[in-house]
Amino acid sequence: MEPRISFVTLAVRDLRTTRAFYVDGLGWTPELDVPGEVVMIRVGEHLILSLWDEAHFQAEVGSIGRGNGVPPFTLAHNVGTPEEVDAVLGDARTAGAEIGEAAQRDWGGYTGYFADPDGVRWEIAWNPAPIGQLVLPDGEQD
Amino acid sequence: MEPRISFVTLAVRDLRTTRAFYVDGLGWTPELDVPGEVVMIRVGEHLILSLWDEAHFQAEVGSIGRGNGVPPFTLAHNVGTPEEVDAVLGDARTAGAEIGEAAQRDWGGYTGYFADPDGVRWEIAWNPAPIGQLVLPDGEQD
Repeated sequence: MEPRISFVTLAVRDLRTTRAFYVDGLGWTPELDVPGEVVMIRVGEHLILSLWDEAHFQAEVGSIGRGNGVPPFTLAHNVGTPEEVDAVLGDARTAGAEIGEAAQRDWGGYTGYFADPDGVRWEIAWNPAPIGQLVLPDGEQD
Repeated sequence: MEPRISFVTLAVRDLRTTRAFYVDGLGWTPELDVPGEVVMIRVGEHLILSLWDEAHFQAEVGSIGRGNGVPPFTLAHNVGTPEEVDAVLGDARTAGAEIGEAAQRDWGGYTGYFADPDGVRWEIAWNPAPIGQLVLPDGEQD
């Protein structure tokens, strides 16, 4: 099995609310948009974010376990400067997200989190290390 | 905020077990490997899978909520033919994963799931629709 992720699929409790956040709030354009079922958004050259209605998700994948607290995963969106971290967190706040304060991290970066309507944490990150550079789009590396 | 995912980070309960599954079992090569803390693996041209020790994850992101059942997200690995779905699921079984039986799906594809040591579901998918083609690596589209 090659190391490759093609889709990241989130189980969504209220697709209208989540669609409003990502599409109307953040301004992302659906690649596929099936009301009540799924919204798919391109988030990389060969990568799709799929927002899938929870009932449909559970019918195929199985009964979901959620507890009190943050989901056991995060998605990161890396940018080229610390200033862009604050700017993107501002965009997310304007779109209605709950924002955590950005902070200098021990490993040398500057990052902050916001939560989508289901509590999925997105980390907006400036990471000056090589691994943080290779995730930036072509032409945006230092 | 551009529609872009740079890292997918999983909160891992036992990093040695999870590392053994992905690195020794699936044969993936770490880009960064810090025992007891984190293993990072490149899973796309500008995409990293980060396997992060749960205690470190919680110290930064917050207390995790887990329930009984599947986590509220999946990761998909798309391939070019139905036969490759079965082959990759076979690789994952050999690596020690719990495998669900692959099935024809209503939307026209053929997919099956396996679970990593923390129960994260990976979907191995053949999707002949345009959105399933665009996620394939360059040169592997129909």
